[in-house]
Amino acid sequence: MTSAPTSILDASSVPALAGSLLERLRAERIRVHAITNAAAQTFTANLLLAAGGIPSLTVAPDEVPAFTSRSDALLVNLGTLDSDRRTAVPEAIATARTHAKPWVLDPVFVEASPTRLKLARSCLAGEPHVLRCNAAEFAALAEEDATPGSIQAFAKSHGTVVALTGAVDLIADANNVLCVENGHPLMTCVTAMGCAGTALVAAFAALHGSAIEAAAAALLVTGVAGEIAAHQANGPGTFQPAFLDALFHLDPETLVTCGRVS
Amino acid sequence: MTSAPTSILDASSVPALAGSLLERLRAERIRVHAITNAAAQTFTANLLLAAGGIPSLTVAPDEVPAFTSRSDALLVNLGTLDSDRRTAVPEAIATARTHAKPWVLDPVFVEASPTRLKLARSCLAGEPHVLRCNAAEFAALAEEDATPGSIQAFAKSHGTVVALTGAVDLIADANNVLCVENGHPLMTCVTAMGCAGTALVAAFAALHGSAIEAAAAALLVTGVAGEIAAHQANGPGTFQPAFLDALFHLDPETLVTCGRVS
Amino acid sequence: MTSAPTSILDASSVPALAGSLLERLRAERIRVHAITNAAAQTFTANLLLAAGGIPSLTVAPDEVPAFTSRSDALLVNLGTLDSDRRTAVPEAIATARTHAKPWVLDPVFVEASPTRLKLARSCLAGEPHVLRCNAAEFAALAEEDATPGSIQAFAKSHGTVVALTGAVDLIADANNVLCVENGHPLMTCVTAMGCAGTALVAAFAALHGSAIEAAAAALLVTGVAGEIAAHQANGPGTFQPAFLDALFHLDPETLVTCGRVS
Repeated sequence: MTSAPTSILDASSVPALAGSLLERLRAERIRVHAITNAAAQTFTANLLLAAGGIPSLTVAPDEVPAFTSRSDALLVNLGTLDSDRRTAVPEAIATARTHAKPWVLDPVFVEASPTRLKLARSCLAGEPHVLRCNAAEFAALAEEDATPGSIQAFAKSHGTVVALTGAVDLIADANNVLCVENGHPLMTCVTAMGCAGTALVAAFAALHGSAIEAAAAALLVTGVAGEIAAHQANGPGTFQPAFLDALFHLDPETLVTCGRVS
Repeated sequence: MTSAPTSILDASSVPALAGSLLERLRAERIRVHAITNAAAQTFTANLLLAAGGIPSLTVAPDEVPAFTSRSDALLVNLGTLDSDRRTAVPEAIATARTHAKPWVLDPVFVEASPTRLKLARSCLAGEPHVLRCNAAEFAALAEEDATPGSIQAFAKSHGTVVALTGAVDLIADANNVLCVENGHPLMTCVTAMGCAGTALVAAFAALHGSAIEAAAAALLVTGVAGEIAAHQANGPGTFQPAFLDALFHLDPETLVTCGRVS
Repeated sequence: MTSAPTSILDASSVPALAGSLLERLRAERIRVHAITNAAAQTFTANLLLAAGGIPSLTVAPDEVPAFTSRSDALLVNLGTLDSDRRTAVPEAIATARTHAKPWVLDPVFVEASPTRLKLARSCLAGEPHVLRCNAAEFAALAEEDATPGSIQAFAKSHGTVVALTGAVDLIADANNVLCVENGHPLMTCVTAMGCAGTALVAAFAALHGSAIEAAAAALLVTGVAGEIAAHQANGPGTFQPAFLDALFHLDPETLVTCGRVS
């Protein structure tokens, strides 16, 4: 863990993989069950529909096992912690693990609340396929600043993939670090853009065995769609519908042409 | 129930009726109280506002009787089942029945959860003016596939109107089956489009004594607005604002010209 | 309280103040914690982001003190009253008062429910910096119709600023009444426009010691953004993204040119 991060994956293959996974998501109508925060529910559902998938959003504890087991992947976002979600989250994770469904953790604002930091840590013990977070959230969880080395060490010690999103996205597992440079600043001016994009990470993880490649491919797709949308939009208001349109129409060739992964 | 479904209504009158009801909805500022799922609340409110009505959305059990009794109609959508809604739904239905307000049931994803199947059945005992569902939801409730004959039989035995939405909408009561062919595939790429459209069914049921005609007219309005919006939109993102604009400007002449009801 | 309302403020300075506060909001990335209704959460967050601020939305009682104390201002909107919010609201208000953070009360639909009328009255005892309401809500709280005189008397007796929104907004404290004439009828055709705009009142109250001027400046900003958006939009659907775009790009010169305050 003291040596420099190295990558044994071929980063240049990610754009083509992203196109292939997007086409399979559409063809197979991948189902994602998302336990997500109140402000992200509608946009998460609309992002999954625009990508060609099928969302469900139930947070009722007695319904979550049925919905999780009929889905292809699970997203757990900690942005809203009401009593239903606090009970539903561990049940959903247990169901996903029992049925060998991939699941993804998004510890929103974990730096702001001891309650959710504790819950996020207990979720991490369930070994999510991917932990998607920003630098502040990572620092709260790892108790150190986010660097390529620290996220790789964290990924290794927790048996997960860390997808650290920012101006450049860093995606690490125990042995590799990938960088995705696509995206646009307007994506930070729309609430739940990151939360909703994480649903695509979950969908891709259902289609591809390498969670680090699946995560990088999903972040590439949202980044390229964001760039296309920013070109169409006049600001953050028109950016959001333009983003869904771009995702709906996105084709593999554009991903290969525009993708910047290293 | 073994004979072929027959219609004693004049289907050709539905487009003109739809225009008349839409104008009255705007003039009378019809109020709909919607107990609906978390992902549908905002769009349901915006659809009712764009149509000229006044939405309210409270799900607090101790507030639901007051909000229901001051509204003209009630929508009950089972897509989110938290503890407040489980308590509020039967109270709202009882209030609507006591005050002779029309009410409409939307049993979202009832095929996916035994909990909501049971709740949906108990709601049905309260004889909704209209049951709005898709083919999978109908099949779970009726324990048989949706056909013109089976939905008519179900409507008769449950004392309701069945509005089965799909590529073609089928609306049946004990004696009639109407088909509404308007709509556009992009409507299935936006979350809560069906849920929100059901609020218009409730509003029209407050204005017109024949629930089957009111339901067909409301589905016609949403279908025509969807066609106009699809013509303007570049994908599912821009479709949603275009749909609200189209509904806001929709006039009776367009409904008569574009309506396809049989 | 029987004399005619008089203003000792210089209304003509409000447009320049609004521009200055908007620029500071962007530069200082003002944080607003919003306990708001389910239908308003997403739009409130997007409005604050478009204005340059940072929203948080948690309603979990055990998290609200941490989120409130790290924010610059608090918004309390009573539109959704679930058990979490009923517990969280007094805790958030107490935290804001302890930390001397400005807070704003929006008693949505208080005229429709005895439960929330009672809660709104107990919130008012916590002396919000601003009470934002419409005429029906004011009448329920004050037990008299809204007039410049009655809102000023209410503001004086409750130690608050009353911001009464409508075709013309009236903003009163014990000694002053300001009128903001900017705005557009399409703003009433989009749900949560008023709720979300109140978050900007809270943000401006964090930046400026005079709550009446901060409230008037915030309503001026939303009114001018609404006018610009209405010029771009084809109806209430396209109005909402156009509003966020307009707010994102709004500059001090436009506020001075277009502002109508007296």
